[in-house]
Amino acid sequence: MSQAPVKRARRPSGGRDQLLETAVGEFIARGYDATSMEDLSRAAGITKSSFYHHFAGKEALLRAALERAVDGLFGVLELPTARDGSPVQRLRVIIAEQVRVLMTELPYVTLLLRVRGNTETERWALERRRAFDAAITRLVRDAVDAGEVRADVDPALAAKLLSGLVNSIVEWYRPGRPGTATLPEDVVQAALTGIVPSPTPNP
Amino acid sequence: MSQAPVKRARRPSGGRDQLLETAVGEFIARGYDATSMEDLSRAAGITKSSFYHHFAGKEALLRAALERAVDGLFGVLELPTARDGSPVQRLRVIIAEQVRVLMTELPYVTLLLRVRGNTETERWALERRRAFDAAITRLVRDAVDAGEVRADVDPALAAKLLSGLVNSIVEWYRPGRPGTATLPEDVVQAALTGIVPSPTPNP
Repeated sequence: MSQAPVKRARRPSGGRDQLLETAVGEFIARGYDATSMEDLSRAAGITKSSFYHHFAGKEALLRAALERAVDGLFGVLELPTARDGSPVQRLRVIIAEQVRVLMTELPYVTLLLRVRGNTETERWALERRRAFDAAITRLVRDAVDAGEVRADVDPALAAKLLSGLVNSIVEWYRPGRPGTATLPEDVVQAALTGIVPSPTPNP
Repeated sequence: MSQAPVKRARRPSGGRDQLLETAVGEFIARGYDATSMEDLSRAAGITKSSFYHHFAGKEALLRAALERAVDGLFGVLELPTARDGSPVQRLRVIIAEQVRVLMTELPYVTLLLRVRGNTETERWALERRRAFDAAITRLVRDAVDAGEVRADVDPALAAKLLSGLVNSIVEWYRPGRPGTATLPEDVVQAALTGIVPSPTPNP
């Protein structure tokens, strides 16, 4: 068909999502504080004013990146399978899906985990992380109360260790790495039965 | 007694160990790259030339700090109780002692865990971390081979998850925090039986 050519952006990689991804890469490599809009424009190969056309500034980029990570994590808590069933069934779903979010949104979650609270946006992100951990703490407490988890488990400590176990994956997981297809289920197994569990007496 | 006053440094806090501790605090707060000898001298309340009297420069400080963390961790592997006994008994000792090193050497281990490999010293530290993880991987493999750990456990993944579990404590542990006296044993328990373990069938 010989229609007039569709008007399209000269840089298909210069869209908002792509700019965000570039910015997050720079934030992770240099540190947020040490990265300027100048650095970001150079990394994206566009002018500073083109960059400002998409994002009001550095903190707007940080906010968009952290929202993507936070929305991914809280989306897990909203899944029907994370809301129904026994506390341990829900925990299983949440841990597996949290690992999946981490694998698919790796740079955004990595950035979220490095946040230290120096800006309003960072303090908002820390508050969201605490809210997520509080939801996990409540669920572990429900599991203990229901007799599904050993009674001597401290829910607050368990939630911190779960968070540490899951989040530590950002340190070494890279997309496409062989042997990581079963990672979500492997982490669930480790959380529920141990990282180095005894053989079951009756296998 | 009316002896002549003992000659003492005007700043008892200006010794080598204290300077190192101050520097590590600044490295953690600002990031190593963003910290100058100027910043360090100011934080320590001494002149730059007094600082250089103790340390040849910034990288010498980093090296001393990372050596302290690395020596602490490798010291664990050298403990008699970490060298004798079944693989799982040795793992129990190593995990507990690794948590203790982390608690007592918190800032130094925190710095070690943030190292990204930008300098020769940082690459040395990363190599030492890999060597430590390799020792744990071998021990988990021995435990699987001895039938002490479930046969479907992947030793390399288990070593990564163990490292993640233990090291995540630096994110929230602070000395003197109530309820952390049993942390070393709690982490051992979590690693061997699960963070949210089922109640034992016959308690």
